[in-house]
Amino acid sequence: MNYRLFSLLVLGLLFSKSLIAQEVEQWGRFEKTFTAKATGNPFTEVTLTAELSNGYTTYSVAGFYDGKDTFKIRFMPPKTGKWRYKTSSNVAGLTNKKGEFTCVAAARGNSGPVRVSDMYAFKYADGTNYYPFGTTAYAWTHMGEETQEITLNTLKNSGFNKLRMCVFPKNYELVKEAPDLFPFEIKEQKKDADGKPYTVWNFDKFNPAFFQHLEKRIDDLNKLGIEADLILFHPYDKGRWGFDAMPNEVNIRYLKYLLARLSSYKNVWWSLANEWDYVKSKTVSDWDLLAKTVAQNDPYKHLCSIHGATATYYDYRKPEFTHVSIQDETPVQSPNAAAMLRHIYHKPVIADEVGYEGNLKSRWGRYSPEEMTYLVWNGVLGGTYVTHGECYMAAPTDTIFWAKGGMFKGTSWKRIAFLRQIVEAFPNPLSLSDVSRDNVTATAGDGQYLVYFGKQTNDSWLFNLPAKNSSFQKLTAGQRFKVEVIDTWDMTIQPDPQIFETASENDYRLYDKTLKKVRLPLKPYVALRITEIK
Amino acid sequence: MNYRLFSLLVLGLLFSKSLIAQEVEQWGRFEKTFTAKATGNPFTEVTLTAELSNGYTTYSVAGFYDGKDTFKIRFMPPKTGKWRYKTSSNVAGLTNKKGEFTCVAAARGNSGPVRVSDMYAFKYADGTNYYPFGTTAYAWTHMGEETQEITLNTLKNSGFNKLRMCVFPKNYELVKEAPDLFPFEIKEQKKDADGKPYTVWNFDKFNPAFFQHLEKRIDDLNKLGIEADLILFHPYDKGRWGFDAMPNEVNIRYLKYLLARLSSYKNVWWSLANEWDYVKSKTVSDWDLLAKTVAQNDPYKHLCSIHGATATYYDYRKPEFTHVSIQDETPVQSPNAAAMLRHIYHKPVIADEVGYEGNLKSRWGRYSPEEMTYLVWNGVLGGTYVTHGECYMAAPTDTIFWAKGGMFKGTSWKRIAFLRQIVEAFPNPLSLSDVSRDNVTATAGDGQYLVYFGKQTNDSWLFNLPAKNSSFQKLTAGQRFKVEVIDTWDMTIQPDPQIFETASENDYRLYDKTLKKVRLPLKPYVALRITEIK
Repeated sequence: MNYRLFSLLVLGLLFSKSLIAQEVEQWGRFEKTFTAKATGNPFTEVTLTAELSNGYTTYSVAGFYDGKDTFKIRFMPPKTGKWRYKTSSNVAGLTNKKGEFTCVAAARGNSGPVRVSDMYAFKYADGTNYYPFGTTAYAWTHMGEETQEITLNTLKNSGFNKLRMCVFPKNYELVKEAPDLFPFEIKEQKKDADGKPYTVWNFDKFNPAFFQHLEKRIDDLNKLGIEADLILFHPYDKGRWGFDAMPNEVNIRYLKYLLARLSSYKNVWWSLANEWDYVKSKTVSDWDLLAKTVAQNDPYKHLCSIHGATATYYDYRKPEFTHVSIQDETPVQSPNAAAMLRHIYHKPVIADEVGYEGNLKSRWGRYSPEEMTYLVWNGVLGGTYVTHGECYMAAPTDTIFWAKGGMFKGTSWKRIAFLRQIVEAFPNPLSLSDVSRDNVTATAGDGQYLVYFGKQTNDSWLFNLPAKNSSFQKLTAGQRFKVEVIDTWDMTIQPDPQIFETASENDYRLYDKTLKKVRLPLKPYVALRITEIK
Repeated sequence: MNYRLFSLLVLGLLFSKSLIAQEVEQWGRFEKTFTAKATGNPFTEVTLTAELSNGYTTYSVAGFYDGKDTFKIRFMPPKTGKWRYKTSSNVAGLTNKKGEFTCVAAARGNSGPVRVSDMYAFKYADGTNYYPFGTTAYAWTHMGEETQEITLNTLKNSGFNKLRMCVFPKNYELVKEAPDLFPFEIKEQKKDADGKPYTVWNFDKFNPAFFQHLEKRIDDLNKLGIEADLILFHPYDKGRWGFDAMPNEVNIRYLKYLLARLSSYKNVWWSLANEWDYVKSKTVSDWDLLAKTVAQNDPYKHLCSIHGATATYYDYRKPEFTHVSIQDETPVQSPNAAAMLRHIYHKPVIADEVGYEGNLKSRWGRYSPEEMTYLVWNGVLGGTYVTHGECYMAAPTDTIFWAKGGMFKGTSWKRIAFLRQIVEAFPNPLSLSDVSRDNVTATAGDGQYLVYFGKQTNDSWLFNLPAKNSSFQKLTAGQRFKVEVIDTWDMTIQPDPQIFETASENDYRLYDKTLKKVRLPLKPYVALRITEIK
């Protein structure tokens, strides 16, 4: 065999191997790297898109420059089977590149991205119910590596499946750390009139390393089954870096670059802003424009919302917003108040800030663990979702999980994990059985109830349920039930030994036909799981 | 003087007299009648409009056929001075009719129509504050004359300044009376297969007498200072007359005819529907169309909203709706819950049904007077408005004010009149001082507070107010206050003899500098009026 023939054989083997090896899980990530000598500004002067088709559906995805003369396209295949791609570019070496890969069935633990389902709830793409039980660590990716690893470990051992986190670093009273990496290239370091150093950014050039790091962390969360509720803008800059006050042209370029990189990450959600109304440089029409930019540049239509300061409600009926993401204490004061937001918006509702467990001086950061748990239960009873946060600071060096990640010091997180188990054991999402009337009874379907007494302390409960049962069938006489008593604080579930049978409707409610009662512990925060025996 | 000359003189005098006599109050009603032999169907075949101008502003108003060969145009002049009109019609005898009148200053008691003011509140056109304290008598104009007169007398002696009432008659369990007059001409009386008589309407022809009667009653309400919140469609027909299920072509013709007749009535509001979602023949896009029809055909843009069943929220952000008009118990469970609707809609909020005082079997019609009063106070504290209703039925012949009018049997109406006096004595509309945090303190400006303890029974109150004061200036140290203790049930206002002076802010609140307390009666439903002494 001469050298030439040998080389051809090897090349042939490599080629066929590479064809065979190109397997990507459903909702996983196909990534293709191209090399081209970048002249001028490759972030702004090079266009790169790819069309991906399985013969039935075609996706158009934007590519992006990843530094060091490399360009990438990424794709999240929504269906198994063979997919072919073809690139288009204004650079000869990047255009008309073709190839294919095979999308194989998702592995266990990969249920795809989360979607809105049944108007008020969520499901993974594979149809599995998803109930958001989130927490908050705004600037965790901007801390030292050790803190980031500790944060991941904390999350791993928690019951949270969503994390609110910022793309941009935070400059706030309780979070002053400068990150190692910034999203833009540094143009020059200057000093102001007082000799204070500041950075002039080259807003024309992104820093790929910043985004590579963010991507790694989003993948780390994905491995833990946690959705990254990514906050794209926030007001906590206060003139330090200026990322809250960039021109809209830069904002849009930033969003398009971020979306080109991140849309193929199945566990990403877009949160246009935290406390949008505190971002003084942007108007509502700016936010509308940015929301539209996100919607138009995300081929997969990941979940998207926007979050304001206390009691500041955006117009969540706008089509760009898949769900309501609010900061307000009022809706979690009672299940009915929470449910009101469902009736107004006809979308899933997440109260992404209702105040936090902690010991801060600020009133939003000093709930007792009992209070935090109570507010989460209220929201969940009302058919909405409530995000946790923890703000303990004993020493000035404390990371305060809500800000920087680190370790939990509180105790509500365990109770929320316990609640998550209860919610996930039901066949359907919860909603109030008899809206605006009965403030303690939620239903998860025919014969499936969760009653929560909140701060009430009762020695017993006369078995009774409302005749109305949300959108499910009305309760009728002769249905038989078992009752379990849930101590939401001590996290115990005790079955009551009795069997209950409904009598006929009596003034909108059905009682046990022999008026049986359930004995309750004389404590607050008691709940009942009531299940029909068929 | 020969007869001819005399006639001319008389005619001349009459003519100049009529020119002089044509004086109309500002926001009063100019009406001009024209006679023309009506051929064909004058409701559908004759077009008549008029342009009215004072040289600066021109209004185009639709005329209407009022029966017996008479056609009318009506106009509500918004400004004093000389106004000229000119008609256009497809009938020679109605077109190009010209004339003028003088609009003179409004008399005492005429403040013009009610408008939205300062986003969440209302003012009359002359700038006077208007706070809606409404009640409900859906079908009062369809009862016998005697009942109608009793109703007017009841309203005269009440504190209500708004009345929810239906154009169409009601066919409901508790209201079965057929009215003397119907809005459409009767085509024929038929019998169905079971021999039950029914009416076939000529939907092409209105019955002017029906509308003349309605107009008289709206004018009667105007004399009492009561706004007519006119319900244009409702579901309480159940196949008896079919007015809930007319084709949209008829709905639109009906609205245009009604608006041509009634837009010039200064005290009219448009309520597209009661319980719109129970009108099974109409979709949301039908309602949108009807709302647009109203907005486009009302030259004066009277207040307009739409009202659903319990917890059914329309998209009140649509521009046709000047305010939110809801049926829901939840927002009046607490002032903060009520305020949530302000933050969501950025419009004035009226809870037009939260259940009613009464003794009915239905749970929406059996609140105690204390409960009805409590719910109204909760809504008012939250910066919204709550409509009263009364549903007492001792004998089957009872009119039930909510349905047919008649006399009040309850006792909350007096307490609501008392609350109205308190609200009207403030310089500005109320809103919560510290939204989503403090659920008992409302403000009406700098140094103007209303605190309501609802069902709490307290022996005393440590003087303290939130630092935050809605959109007004923050409270500061050294401000001096007097406090009056209000018994909202017994309707007494007792001044506390002390003078209070704020110390510095302490954890979001300001206390009296010597920690003075106010002694309270050991009763529920106690409020405080707190006024700065300057």
